[in-house]
Amino acid sequence: MPYDRSNIFAKILRGEIPCVKIYEDDKTFAFMDVMPQAEGHTLVVPKEEAENIFELSPEGAAALIQTAQKIAAAVKKATGAPGIMLVQLNGRPAGQSVFHIHMHIIPRHAGIDLEFHERNMVPAAELEPLAEKIRAAL
Amino acid sequence: MPYDRSNIFAKILRGEIPCVKIYEDDKTFAFMDVMPQAEGHTLVVPKEEAENIFELSPEGAAALIQTAQKIAAAVKKATGAPGIMLVQLNGRPAGQSVFHIHMHIIPRHAGIDLEFHERNMVPAAELEPLAEKIRAAL
Repeated sequence: MPYDRSNIFAKILRGEIPCVKIYEDDKTFAFMDVMPQAEGHTLVVPKEEAENIFELSPEGAAALIQTAQKIAAAVKKATGAPGIMLVQLNGRPAGQSVFHIHMHIIPRHAGIDLEFHERNMVPAAELEPLAEKIRAAL
Repeated sequence: MPYDRSNIFAKILRGEIPCVKIYEDDKTFAFMDVMPQAEGHTLVVPKEEAENIFELSPEGAAALIQTAQKIAAAVKKATGAPGIMLVQLNGRPAGQSVFHIHMHIIPRHAGIDLEFHERNMVPAAELEPLAEKIRAAL
């Protein structure tokens, strides 16, 4: 799917619609999520026009995570949250709703458990066939 | 908390315990998660000894996400999953259970919704006070 320049984050980057801005440098931009999963939920986007992790350049990806490091530390300090979750969703089935790549920075507190529970151990032998397919796809 | 070299991913990196390996380069290592959230759930770790995103060097962070880009594309191709979620958890309250920084690569399919639902819009004015604290913490 070609990048759609009418997406809401593209509009924010072009200054066409407002946002609660946190940070900006030559390659990235950070602002508050207006539909927060938790207080302090912040988004980091690369300025590069890319829909998802697959389209983003390696340089754009490096800039994205390096700004996320800075913002995550600031969000942790500002909120006092003991945990910070970074989430980057690709594709509608993964929960992506705005088609300009973005990294969620979400404060997490003890007792809040949105996910990552009830996991079961899988023997290596059962993992191997798919592992071989993934290696072959590299 | 100082980095604990006895964590399970440090042992995997040192070859002391086995894993289902997917990829390795000079800065990163990827292997199948033995407690998968979905079929094809893969982990990417930097070789740098860092507990979380706050301790990892910017260079280590760049290597981590650049390998995640490669592995995510391979996992998508191998599994046929229409969505890919990248998740990186910092601190036990965020769900981190192994204290060597790692990036989860999790295939997502239509109809599976582990999170990111029932979000409510928050007016910018309500976001601004915390935004100011985050900016001040940068």
